[in-house]
Amino acid sequence: MAKKLLLDGHDVYIIDNLSTGFKENIPSKATFIFGDCSKKETIDQLDNIYFDAIFHIAGQSSGEISFEDPLYDIDCNTISTLLLLQYAVRTNCPRVVYASTMSVYGDNEKQVVSELDIPNPKSFYAVGKLASENYLKIFNQVYGINYTILRYFNIYGPGQNMNNMKQGMASIFLKQLLSKDYSSVTIKGSIQRFRDFIFIEDLVKITIDALDCDLMKNQILNVGTGVKTTIAHLLDLLMQYSGIEKSLKIEGNTLGDQFGIYADNSKLRGCIDYHFTPIERGIELFVKSQM
Amino acid sequence: MAKKLLLDGHDVYIIDNLSTGFKENIPSKATFIFGDCSKKETIDQLDNIYFDAIFHIAGQSSGEISFEDPLYDIDCNTISTLLLLQYAVRTNCPRVVYASTMSVYGDNEKQVVSELDIPNPKSFYAVGKLASENYLKIFNQVYGINYTILRYFNIYGPGQNMNNMKQGMASIFLKQLLSKDYSSVTIKGSIQRFRDFIFIEDLVKITIDALDCDLMKNQILNVGTGVKTTIAHLLDLLMQYSGIEKSLKIEGNTLGDQFGIYADNSKLRGCIDYHFTPIERGIELFVKSQM
Repeated sequence: MAKKLLLDGHDVYIIDNLSTGFKENIPSKATFIFGDCSKKETIDQLDNIYFDAIFHIAGQSSGEISFEDPLYDIDCNTISTLLLLQYAVRTNCPRVVYASTMSVYGDNEKQVVSELDIPNPKSFYAVGKLASENYLKIFNQVYGINYTILRYFNIYGPGQNMNNMKQGMASIFLKQLLSKDYSSVTIKGSIQRFRDFIFIEDLVKITIDALDCDLMKNQILNVGTGVKTTIAHLLDLLMQYSGIEKSLKIEGNTLGDQFGIYADNSKLRGCIDYHFTPIERGIELFVKSQM
Repeated sequence: MAKKLLLDGHDVYIIDNLSTGFKENIPSKATFIFGDCSKKETIDQLDNIYFDAIFHIAGQSSGEISFEDPLYDIDCNTISTLLLLQYAVRTNCPRVVYASTMSVYGDNEKQVVSELDIPNPKSFYAVGKLASENYLKIFNQVYGINYTILRYFNIYGPGQNMNNMKQGMASIFLKQLLSKDYSSVTIKGSIQRFRDFIFIEDLVKITIDALDCDLMKNQILNVGTGVKTTIAHLLDLLMQYSGIEKSLKIEGNTLGDQFGIYADNSKLRGCIDYHFTPIERGIELFVKSQM
């Protein structure tokens, strides 16, 4: 995101506590503030300067981890949103783009979910994200701050943290395939579960496009490809492009895990004309970036 | 609630920070812990003893006040739920009854709302209550704690704090009618707004009945009368039963105020056979209790 925004000629400020990311990924031209968006002291370091927009992408993004410390999760994913929205009010920032999640839907009998479906979060992570969505709507109604809520489906691709074994299905499997430390690949839950995998570059482009797209203003949008991919198929692709085969070890589900949903993305496609990277191509690029 | 539970032969523990209530209202037979349910130190005072059930009715319950300090509101209405649910897990408490609110619906074109409608909270208060509902569902799925979520509509009646001018529509108006400090009655927003007013005794009975009603287990239920009452009619009744007439002063809406919804209570009536106190009778009893 930061790289692309800088290329487009923007000034970029980044706040990150580096809990899952790495300092070397931060472009040198960006102003970097080390800290936690859920702490007032961190937000105060912005010195109330004016921004054209705030992308709120910070947060603890693992449903599994959210069960270890639900209170920490509220801090990361809900208090941070409040503090950034209060900053926006204080500094007349007109625009906030928010990284929400397909997790707010929980499981749904229909499998394919649209923005009109009732959210039914199954993890603390998803509860916090949904609360943040509601804060954004209130700050719009009361203070006029324009939002776009993007419900990201499963993100994968180059740049993903390969050492975080609780976050990112594709990266977790790829790590186990590539690393000599693993003799097999452990799957938590059925390989018939499925996801809607979206390539990081598609996500970056759509997120930045949201800034200037009037149709996306004050809307909630599914950001997924609309394609259902089973875990079994994902594993096939990872093995095919890496040329490495390992046996599978199936374990029990992680807490709050969804069996599977994929995106009805017709609302998004009504806003922007976009062709998603097919999973075959995306996984190829991802695997190559790691070998 | 406490009085009735004691009469029924239960042992009762009460936690209250007395931010809106009064110590003299607490029955002497109940064990009283002064403190805030959103603080671990308070919950720790319960010494991990076993309870058959927890009624979580604590919280900051004014939508208007929630705009003054949204962070405090998360503490009161969301963190408190997490801490009490964690207590329930730790002590094997099988049952939690939660006081939620009609505010989670926000405004709805249909005016009459059912549990199948998509929540659309308009205040921070409502966002926190909705997040708590979601926590209850997760604790049921993951830890097996049985919940009942009661979405209370507008509560009124004897015992209401008559000096809190930001909470409780009926009590706010009645106070202004009865007190010599007010020469007129101030209404914040149109008198054509409407509410579904439920008498405190009805609410207490339904909340306690929820404990033993299997049909209400792990359900969300509207707790309202199903009758729509305009602010204008409420004022008529208050003046009629108090015998006092004052002029009305109409001001702007408070932040996040709903125009009006009332309960589709068919789900509740499918669980228990109950006749609600008509508003005329309830207001009569309420006014008499204050004169």
